[in-house]
Amino acid sequence: MCVPGCMETVTERLSRRSFFKGAGALALAGGGAAAAPVAPARAATQFSQVIDLTHTFSPEFPTFFGIPGIEQETMYTFDEAGFNMKRWSLVEHAATHMDAPIHFSKEAQSAEEVPVDNLVVPLAVIDIREKADGNPDAQVTPDDIKSWEAANGPIPERACVAMNSGWADHVGNPGKFTGKDDDGVFHFPGIHVEAAQYLLEETTAIGLAVDTLSLDHGPSQSFDTHYAWLPTNRWGLENLANLSALPPVGATLVAGTPKVAGATGGPSRLIALV
Amino acid sequence: MCVPGCMETVTERLSRRSFFKGAGALALAGGGAAAAPVAPARAATQFSQVIDLTHTFSPEFPTFFGIPGIEQETMYTFDEAGFNMKRWSLVEHAATHMDAPIHFSKEAQSAEEVPVDNLVVPLAVIDIREKADGNPDAQVTPDDIKSWEAANGPIPERACVAMNSGWADHVGNPGKFTGKDDDGVFHFPGIHVEAAQYLLEETTAIGLAVDTLSLDHGPSQSFDTHYAWLPTNRWGLENLANLSALPPVGATLVAGTPKVAGATGGPSRLIALV
Ligand SMILES: [Zn+2]
Ligand SMILES: [Zn+2]
Repeated sequence: MCVPGCMETVTERLSRRSFFKGAGALALAGGGAAAAPVAPARAATQFSQVIDLTHTFSPEFPTFFGIPGIEQETMYTFDEAGFNMKRWSLVEHAATHMDAPIHFSKEAQSAEEVPVDNLVVPLAVIDIREKADGNPDAQVTPDDIKSWEAANGPIPERACVAMNSGWADHVGNPGKFTGKDDDGVFHFPGIHVEAAQYLLEETTAIGLAVDTLSLDHGPSQSFDTHYAWLPTNRWGLENLANLSALPPVGATLVAGTPKVAGATGGPSRLIALV
Repeated sequence: MCVPGCMETVTERLSRRSFFKGAGALALAGGGAAAAPVAPARAATQFSQVIDLTHTFSPEFPTFFGIPGIEQETMYTFDEAGFNMKRWSLVEHAATHMDAPIHFSKEAQSAEEVPVDNLVVPLAVIDIREKADGNPDAQVTPDDIKSWEAANGPIPERACVAMNSGWADHVGNPGKFTGKDDDGVFHFPGIHVEAAQYLLEETTAIGLAVDTLSLDHGPSQSFDTHYAWLPTNRWGLENLANLSALPPVGATLVAGTPKVAGATGGPSRLIALV
């Protein structure tokens, strides 16, 4: 059975798959910056609800580097100057933030170079809370994506694929959130490099998002997912909040990432439209 | 003549107007933080185009304070560490940024306290390019808003009202953008306090935006518009780009403002959905 337009879609999808198989293989082989898919005309999108996917950024927010992600200094106060104003000093990769393609590559896009059309995209939320609850080192695997597709249909065009591991609930408990053990090894969920490869080869996804400190799970020393994904001019988002409030499919992400010259990423305001 | 639902709307609008007349008067009289209107259920919104209203933030971007708005320091490089990462030091009120209510008040909302529902709102773009072309001190007046309403209908519910003075085109020419004269006085367009008062009293607008350095026009020493608007828990946006690409009405702003604890504003990614 085929609704009108279906054969066209299948043909398109098949030819795209083989195209991206090539692009993905190239990127994975040599870290070459195979271009992310160019935006086609955007289908009309509708929403009636707004959900904030951003944690509040404060010096207490747990960081990967173990130093405060932000320091704030008061420049002017209302009582003395008639207005309030501060200065911030911050690490690009702290709190809810973007990994720009250049973060793990020599030449890919810096934050301000990511086309704005790549920042408003469908969200596919993959729920691994159950397995992560029993194993802090859990990863999103190709099988998790295939199960998601069996239930929800193919990953939408140009999607951001987000891992919901339940870790956003642990932000107030740095020991649990980072999972740092006595040897200094982190334990938190992430996305397996084979899942990233599956997305590169079989879908047009352009973003990866996680509710933990890193796209790669805590114990990773080789950051395979970062190295497979970012050099292709695809981007990442880390430390998301509130993914449990979203449907598996149907939300649109507006990624308010920093338009800062040469930035390798930075604190972002992530808003979902449902 | 009245289409179905019209009488209801008129009644609602009348009663709201008198309510806000009270709230506006209170705010203007004493700087008391009269609450911005609470979000009703959101009407379904549709879009098929994405437009970036954000300038690239670099140390060269002209600032109100005459010091660089941002400094960047390299922490790690791909060649030495296998990844790129920087640290930024920045002034909250530079480049395309938010003025949180607390910026010009003692107790109103800081950046992270602004409800996310207030950050996804209809945009009303008021074009004063013609008069600003002949007068860099030009201001949006109540008459400009009334002319806009005569052409486009009432200011939408919970709108962000944006001034398009054409100044975004001058960003590469700091002398013109700031308009600083020999006495150190700025000359650039802004929003007259009477226009802000009109919006407080006659509409449910919750945001003001300008394509210049300040809500108040360059020569202002008293910042009347800031003091009238922000203490009511309404917010401002400054140094917008690309407003000329938008229709006067029909665009939705997604204001990617910083969710930074205690911030008085900060660099923002502003995206319009049309
Ligand atoms: Zn990162
Ligand atoms: Zn400001």
